[in-house]
Order: sequence, then structure tokens, then C-alpha cells
Amino acid sequence: MTIWSLGFSAQWMALLATAAPGEGYAKALAAAVSFTFIAIFLASRICGEIAVRIGLPSVLGDLTAGVLLGVSALHILVLPEGNVGNVAPMVVNLVRAIASTTTEIATAVYQGPVRIIFEGYAETGVLFLLFTIGLESDLKELLKVGSQAAIVAVAGVTLPFIFGFLGLISLFDMATIPALFAGAALTATSIGITAKVMQDIGVLKSEEGRIILAAAILDDLLGILILAVVASVAEQGEVQVANVVYLSVSATVFVLSAIVLNRFFGPWYVANLNKLRNSSNIFIGALIFGATMGLLADAAGLEPILGSFAAGLVMGGTDKREELKEMFKPLVAIFTTVFFVVIGAKTDLNLINPAIPRNREGLIIASFLILVAILGKASAGFFVVTEDGLNRLAIGTGMVPRGEVGLIFAGLGATIEGLPESLDVAIVLMVLVTTFLSPLLLRLAFATPETAEL
Amino acid sequence: MTIWSLGFSAQWMALLATAAPGEGYAKALAAAVSFTFIAIFLASRICGEIAVRIGLPSVLGDLTAGVLLGVSALHILVLPEGNVGNVAPMVVNLVRAIASTTTEIATAVYQGPVRIIFEGYAETGVLFLLFTIGLESDLKELLKVGSQAAIVAVAGVTLPFIFGFLGLISLFDMATIPALFAGAALTATSIGITAKVMQDIGVLKSEEGRIILAAAILDDLLGILILAVVASVAEQGEVQVANVVYLSVSATVFVLSAIVLNRFFGPWYVANLNKLRNSSNIFIGALIFGATMGLLADAAGLEPILGSFAAGLVMGGTDKREELKEMFKPLVAIFTTVFFVVIGAKTDLNLINPAIPRNREGLIIASFLILVAILGKASAGFFVVTEDGLNRLAIGTGMVPRGEVGLIFAGLGATIEGLPESLDVAIVLMVLVTTFLSPLLLRLAFATPETAEL
Repeated sequence: MTIWSLGFSAQWMALLATAAPGEGYAKALAAAVSFTFIAIFLASRICGEIAVRIGLPSVLGDLTAGVLLGVSALHILVLPEGNVGNVAPMVVNLVRAIASTTTEIATAVYQGPVRIIFEGYAETGVLFLLFTIGLESDLKELLKVGSQAAIVAVAGVTLPFIFGFLGLISLFDMATIPALFAGAALTATSIGITAKVMQDIGVLKSEEGRIILAAAILDDLLGILILAVVASVAEQGEVQVANVVYLSVSATVFVLSAIVLNRFFGPWYVANLNKLRNSSNIFIGALIFGATMGLLADAAGLEPILGSFAAGLVMGGTDKREELKEMFKPLVAIFTTVFFVVIGAKTDLNLINPAIPRNREGLIIASFLILVAILGKASAGFFVVTEDGLNRLAIGTGMVPRGEVGLIFAGLGATIEGLPESLDVAIVLMVLVTTFLSPLLLRLAFATPETAEL
Repeated sequence: MTIWSLGFSAQWMALLATAAPGEGYAKALAAAVSFTFIAIFLASRICGEIAVRIGLPSVLGDLTAGVLLGVSALHILVLPEGNVGNVAPMVVNLVRAIASTTTEIATAVYQGPVRIIFEGYAETGVLFLLFTIGLESDLKELLKVGSQAAIVAVAGVTLPFIFGFLGLISLFDMATIPALFAGAALTATSIGITAKVMQDIGVLKSEEGRIILAAAILDDLLGILILAVVASVAEQGEVQVANVVYLSVSATVFVLSAIVLNRFFGPWYVANLNKLRNSSNIFIGALIFGATMGLLADAAGLEPILGSFAAGLVMGGTDKREELKEMFKPLVAIFTTVFFVVIGAKTDLNLINPAIPRNREGLIIASFLILVAILGKASAGFFVVTEDGLNRLAIGTGMVPRGEVGLIFAGLGATIEGLPESLDVAIVLMVLVTTFLSPLLLRLAFATPETAEL
């Protein structure tokens, strides 16, 4: 996965060469890792608490915590790509003091291993996240998704993708690959916040609610497939039709195999794990399976996260689903939190500071993405073909928040060379704004059912 | 912590300089990490299953899995200190093929980041392990430990330490620091296997059983204190009386503060975490606390694991103990397994191959350590002063297995410069043999109660 490659800058190697490991190095590293860890989790707790109390998902808290700790503000968590600056001198001094070492060693520790370790945690976090999403995507529900929901899902993926892609190319003269990537980032749907708002206003069990929930399951699957294909294309740096076809087919085959395996392999595997007498067999068995699927995806030229997702799908079809969800909770709480905080930390808000003239275009692109993100999903509801007075605007509006899968795009985009950094910031902003706005939009849409029939 | 410093060899930096990151690097790294992960967990499952089926603790399975994967056999998991060889060419070729890259890149990936990542996992694993040991050491039980158990515990720590230390210096002309370290490694007690054997033969609730269990709790505490002091001394490379006194005092103050904090801070902290509305607050709160205590220990010149242990002690005194034990289970299952497997992988059994003449002294030292380990603990039972016909031999024999804490010594020892590598192998062997033998010894001791009165 491309995130790994970041740890190895020429800058770091030069620093390591001057500050040879030895006395103080190990202590400085331990201190820097502990301090960064504490900062990440304190900030994510505080911001997450505020988010939850004002009715927003805690992932927005993690993201905000990252923005506060990262290159936009405090410079406590700085994992530079390019040249966005170093960790704050105050932090280096603190680590130097705790470890009783020199400023050179404390700096070298931050330039190198701290980065590898937290990039590695973030990387592990997205793999655990995808496994959990797979675990929670009930395949039986997915196969039962009604035709109405399927239409909404496909329209909600296609419209933002097409409008985003074509708009960026025609209005902003963007190159094909960045436009493809940004278009793909617009496809995801995060159902958590919509489900909560619908529960609050008592429409979760309505026909609209059931269509939204079913369409969102399918959207996750489509979004992850698109992600796997587009990320691989973007990493190669050029669009070759044969390659896109190959990747699309292999990604689809991968997930279809998971659906077939689900019927046969899953129960057989679990039954055999159950025969073993050592502890945690189911859990470790699931991890081995996930890593194997990741390796297979890697070998097939796809993103390892697709393998992790497929493994989650298979294990979610067995009777150990609830047990595995419990076992993955602490892992997600640690590593996926680091993943979201790292995305926030890498988001350089200075790139969209409207006071700086050269930022204007980036801001306009971000506004365009936000507009397409909202209108593309909101209009998808109108593709429902029944005539029984459904609130179609509400159905589309329910699909607006992008959440986790949108952030996975942002996280991947940050690691792909050739994508403009401002595009990444625009994607993070798009996820932030759609998620912040959707509770309000959804309440409005459900309050005015007559507009759905316009 | 010293384990971190291993990642930064001159060899690796030279390799990185020749194989610049780029195309294929990230994919090769992902493939190497996945493959190593799968190998570690498959081997630990298979060996652990065999261990559990023949009545041994699964940690012996992890250790054996490590020996199979490591420098002694398959060369799949090679985390070299010094010059013990590289990962097997077959493995490099596999990774090269999966990632469609060059042999140079696949090799560089193994020399550098794979090492940092798995050392980091192992390091994280020992921190989680110590937190869990703290969590399970009921402080109230510890304060209630009867005088009989206290005498057994102190004798069982003192006798092996003194005999080991003096024996190594006088019989083998060993330098002070290695002798101190090996003596300290002899002090630990692992109660798991003894408790299981006593349960099997129905003496767990006997007077002997209760003394063994209580003494083992105290032994864990004493062993970890000694570890914290001796490891710091060994890292500094010289024994200064003032420093040993300082370290002993600060380690003791550290743990005493935990006992005091336990009464006041723990319940207050948990009560406040309970007021928060975000999810996983108790768990993340415990992690933040553990990392903070680790940082404080680091700042005080002690090992961070002492902070982790103290944090576990404090959280174990609250009403969230059971919840935390559940949340830490998956973390221990992953990271502590990697820790034990890494210890096995680093153990170079060639260093004790009796066919090689220069290995003879190492073998004799290992035999001496095993002898002192068994006799030192077994004789501790005879310090019980009551005259009510207790099986004193059985009490001492119950303390023989070294298990986890002994392995923490081996793990730390491997990272401290100046300790002979053969000594580390001898410590691992001592842990292996005492743990393998103790079920047999314990059954014999309980079968012959009259010998206890000799």
C-alpha cells in the first residue's frame, strides 16, 4: 500500500546518517511515540465528545482532532509529504527533555520512525475498518435489496461520479486522473448519521428509511469497488483502457468470489476453527484470512483493502459475526481512530485560506465538489419508479453524507503522487461539509414531503 | 525502549540508499508485512494447538513457532541484531513475485521497514501484556497475602537471584552486568500452568494451592521491579551503587504510588470517563493513562513497561476491570503473540548445538541456569514456618515455571548491547525447560507429601 512509502524520504535518511542511533535514541523514540499517542487520543476524545453532544458522528471529532494536531495548527502530528513543515520545536524540546538526549536525535526520531509507526497504525486502521464494514454488510440483505433500492444506489453512485468527473475536466481543465479520483471520491455513502437522524424523527422504519438503508449497503460495495479500481489506475499514473477493464473485472470477480465463498468456505472454516482448543481461534483465524485475502488482492494488482473487505464479508456470513464484531471493536477504536486523525493532520487548511489569492481556484473546486456531492445524491431519489407518494427528495438526501469511505479516498489520495494536494483538501472538505449539513437537510426534506412529488 | 533502536543498522541504510523507494516499493512492503503476519499467526496457531493438547501453556507454542520461523530454522522472520543472517531467498522471491518488483527492493523492504514494524508490534505487545498483568494483579489480594506466602515469594525471588548471580561470577567468570541480568531473569514466576495442574489433580483449593497462588502474585510484582532496575543498569553498561539505589527507590515509589493512586485516582477517573457520551471511553481512557504512565517511567529513567504495569494495577482496582480485560483480549492475542514469536525467532539454537565445540560453555551455562531455576524455587517452599504438615516441596515446585515474565527478560536482553547472545539463548532455554518440566515435577511433588517433611 502506498502509504508505507512515505517513511523513506531523502531528508530523513540524511538526518539519520548525521544522528547515529545510540544512547538516548531508543528512549527518545519511546517518548515521542508515547507523547504522539497521548496527543492523538486526548484530542480525539475531546473533539469526539463535542461532536457526539451536538448530534454529529464521532468520526468528525477524530477528523477535527487531526486538523488541530496537524499541519494546519499545532504541528504535533506532522507526517509530511512534500514540504509542509516539521513538528513543532516545543514538541522536539519536550521529547529531548524526557529522554535526556540531544535536539538532533529528537528531530531524527520525528523525521523517521515516528512517521513509519503512525503511518503503519493508520494503514492497519483502514484495513480493520474495511474488514468491519465487510462484517457488517449482511450479504443476504445485499442480495435481497429491492429493485427500488438498487436503482437509487446505482444512480447515487453514477450521477456524482459522472458530473464530478466531467465537470472537473470541462470547467477546471483538470487532468484525467485527478478528475477520475475526485469523481470516485464523490460516490461513497455513509449511512450512520442518516440512520440516527431518521431514528430521531421516527421515520427509520418507513418505506423511505428502508430504501435508504438498503441502497447504502449496495453503495458501500460499489464505492469500495470503484476505489480499488481508481486508486490502482491513479498509482500507475496513466489511464489505459485495457487496464481499467482488467482492474474492474478482477475487482468484481474478487467480490463475487467472496459472495460464493461465503456460502461454502465461511461455515467450513469456522467449523474447523471451532475444533481447535487454543484460545481466540476464531479471531486469529479471521485475521489470517483477512491478511491472505489482502495478499491475494495485492498480487492481483488491486488494493489490499479490497481483500480485507471481502474477508469481512465472508466472516460476516457465519454465525461468529457478533463475536468478531466484539473482538474488532478495540482494534477499530485504536487504529481506525489513528487513521482518521492522520487524515485530519495531513489536511492543510492553509491551502484553502481565502485570503491567499492563489488558493481561490482550490476553493472553487472544493465548492464545486460539495455542490455535486449534495445534488448528485439528492437527485438519485427521483429515479425511484413507483408512484405511491414516496418522499423521493428525502431518499436522495439520506444518501448525502460521505463519512468513512469518502475519507478512505482522501487518505489514499494523499499517498498517490501526481494528485494535487489541494484536491485532497477539497475531498476532505467535501466529506466534512456533506456530513455536517446532512442532519439539517434530512430534517428539511422529511418535513416537506410534497416537494418530493415536484 | 531499546527494541526500537534495532531498526537502524548501517546495513539497512546502505541498502535503502541503493534501492530508492518508488514503483513497487509500497506493494512489496505490503506483501512482505502480510506474508510475515500470516506466517507468524499460522505457525503460532499450529504450535499453540499442539502445546494445549499435550497440557502445556500456549505461550510455549508461540515460542516454538518463533524458533521454527526464525534464525534457527526457516529464516522467514529474521530481525537481526549483529550478523545472524538474512531472510530466506525463497521468501524474498515470493514477495518480489507478488509485488512484481525487483530482488533489490524486496530485500530492502525486509532489511528495513518490515523489521521496524514487527519490532514495533512486539514492543506494543509487551506493553499490553504488562498492562494486562497489572489488571489481573488484584491489589487487595496482594495486600492480604499471608505472611507464609510473602516469605515463600521473597525466598523464591532471592534464592535464584543470589545463587544465579554469584554462581555465574564465581564458576564462569562472567562480568557483573550479564550475571546480574541472568540472575534477575531467574526470579520470575508464571502461575498459569501450575494453577492448571493443581486444578487437574484437585489441590487448587488446598492450603498449598492458596499459598502458591498468593506468592505468585507478589512474585510478579517483585520480578517486574527487579526487571525495571536491572534492565536500566544493563543499558547504562556499568553498575554504580548510587544509580542502583536511585533506580530501586524510584521503581518502588512508582509502584507504591500506583497502590495509593489506586484508592483515589482510579475510581475518580473512571467516574469521569463514564460521564462522557462517546463510545469506548473507558478503554481509550485506560490507554491514555497507560501511555502517560509509560512516559513518566521513561522520564524517571525506568522502563516504560513499569508504567504500563502500574497503570494496569490502578485500572484493575476499579469496577471496569472485567470490561477492560475483555477489550484487551484481542490486543494481547495479536501483539503479545508477535512478542513471543519474535523472542523465539531471535533465539539462535545453533549457539547451543553441542556438536560445535565452542558452544560447550554456553550449554554448561544454560544447564547451570536451569538447575538454579528449579532448585532455587523448589527450596523456597521450605521457608514456610508453620508446622502443620504442609507439603513444602510442592509449594516450591509450584513456583518453578517462569513463563511470560522470564520471556520479557529474554526479549529485553536481546536488545541490550554488551550482553552475550548465548546468555539470551540460555535464558530462553531456561524458561522453556522449567515450563516444560513443571507439570511433571508438580505431580511428583504432590504425590509424595512425606518428602516435604524431610
